Amino acid sequence: MAVYTDVAAEDAAAFLTEYDIGRIVSLKGIAEGVENSNYLLLTDRSPFILTLYEKRVREEDLPFYLGLMEHLADRDVPCPTPIHGRDGAALRKLNGRPAAIISFLNGVSPRRVRPEHCAALGSALAGLHLAGQDFSMSRPNDLCLTGWQNLAKQCLGQADEVMPGLGREIASEVEALEASWPDTLPSGVIHADLFCDNVFFEGDALTGLIDFYFACNDFFAYDVAICMNAWCFENEREFNVTKARQLLASYRQVRPFETGELEALPLLARGAALRFLLTRLFDWLHPVDGALVTPKDPLEYLRKLRFHQGVTSPTAYGLT
Amino acid sequence: MAVYTDVAAEDAAAFLTEYDIGRIVSLKGIAEGVENSNYLLLTDRSPFILTLYEKRVREEDLPFYLGLMEHLADRDVPCPTPIHGRDGAALRKLNGRPAAIISFLNGVSPRRVRPEHCAALGSALAGLHLAGQDFSMSRPNDLCLTGWQNLAKQCLGQADEVMPGLGREIASEVEALEASWPDTLPSGVIHADLFCDNVFFEGDALTGLIDFYFACNDFFAYDVAICMNAWCFENEREFNVTKARQLLASYRQVRPFETGELEALPLLARGAALRFLLTRLFDWLHPVDGALVTPKDPLEYLRKLRFHQGVTSPTAYGLT
Repeated sequence: MAVYTDVAAEDAAAFLTEYDIGRIVSLKGIAEGVENSNYLLLTDRSPFILTLYEKRVREEDLPFYLGLMEHLADRDVPCPTPIHGRDGAALRKLNGRPAAIISFLNGVSPRRVRPEHCAALGSALAGLHLAGQDFSMSRPNDLCLTGWQNLAKQCLGQADEVMPGLGREIASEVEALEASWPDTLPSGVIHADLFCDNVFFEGDALTGLIDFYFACNDFFAYDVAICMNAWCFENEREFNVTKARQLLASYRQVRPFETGELEALPLLARGAALRFLLTRLFDWLHPVDGALVTPKDPLEYLRKLRFHQGVTSPTAYGLT
Repeated sequence: MAVYTDVAAEDAAAFLTEYDIGRIVSLKGIAEGVENSNYLLLTDRSPFILTLYEKRVREEDLPFYLGLMEHLADRDVPCPTPIHGRDGAALRKLNGRPAAIISFLNGVSPRRVRPEHCAALGSALAGLHLAGQDFSMSRPNDLCLTGWQNLAKQCLGQADEVMPGLGREIASEVEALEASWPDTLPSGVIHADLFCDNVFFEGDALTGLIDFYFACNDFFAYDVAICMNAWCFENEREFNVTKARQLLASYRQVRPFETGELEALPLLARGAALRFLLTRLFDWLHPVDGALVTPKDPLEYLRKLRFHQGVTSPTAYGLT
């Protein structure tokens, strides 16, 4: 849950005069997004999301995120799109923070993932990858190899406080991935954080992909690996090949995998597990005062990492 | 902000099958109400509020609160009304907590109170008092004299940690109020917590009174005194007689004051200030782990209390 910056109704009403989206009818701080402050804004015309970007999101990256959402939404990816004010600007300031109004998407996030959800997710993810190919901006993934090495350095001294031996295990995995991480695979804009919280459904129909604030340029298959970790484990410990098969099969119907991508999948899944192990470990060891966010268990991703370390071929994911 | 009990979309959807209010379209935990977990629920027909009652609200009081809201809403008080399920019940269980769906009210809470707000508040409060007169249930105010004495006992040992001398000042005020608190004044159902957060406006028009979870039976003028404290101070220190005059004059146009009520107002305002001083002090000294609520400054209400201690006649409130 995350409302960091408190917005007075009067300030929101004044902010709205820059837009042609109707008159404010309701404004509620919502528990959505952990990096930003989000408000559900109802006007007499429609619901919208008002987002204030907090310090964890770099201001210079905002044109990339907002431009990407608009680019994808224009190409029928079911994602929010920034609303432009009368002056044409989508990004402005509110209460001293960068702020934007974005479109509202119907749907709810599944808590109990079913294979049908994974199938819909696979198609939508591939659609996002294809639609992003002609997006003119790019942003390097700062949570890839170099980022992991930096995070590992900042965590290793204390990692064993969380679990004895964790520091050694992380150091050895960083080293292994450094030695074998692929140089070239099909790449482009990826979402990089497509957890269940960030995907909306109405029934089995996927209606929304939200929270593009980790989007960056990287291997497409790495994005698939992130989803596999987030959507295909049961109780954090058991890998559900039925879900993985649905996810991957429906992805590949929209954007076929190259052989190299398929072969790299176990390694990419290890990297994807390490990335969330490290960021969660960092947040666990460095809690932010008053952030109102409960740090997530880093060890969930250690268990997922260990599973992938034991995978010798993508057939373990239900693939042929 | 308060979302204590997490509700999975699947559970909310199952809960909704008990009602005839449409299909779930969106569900967002909202930062509203400090005692309960609140969700803004959009169905394909309308927005609603889904409330899960947390431990601070006594389950045996819920029929009073829900019955009162329905009673008042039926009499055109602009307040939420509980939605009945197909079986007729408005109160059921969700995730092990008592839960209800209540109607959604348009409007936003003012942050910068203007005299026009106070005028609208006065009329609405008097309307609430009149409409509650034929409500068949009652609930004693457990935050009146006896409650203050109990709270004071639990806080006095530590009160001086917050401010040297605070314990002595509270004890002497409790004693003074005990000696002079009125026995009989016009009474009935009062809201008892009508802070700005609990009142919605569209422009200058009052559109909603919410959060009836402190409602009880007590002196009507005590409810007025609570509002005077919450709405008529500037920067917590200066009393704005223009606002007080608006509040009281518009109240008295709808429900005239008896002479005794007018005379008792300075004393009632001291009691109302002491009540929030004590509950805030208790919460300050006994923070609840993981409550996600920032305790409010108890000393704000000490300053208000001291102001009223210096008042010798209701003319100080702009009244004649």
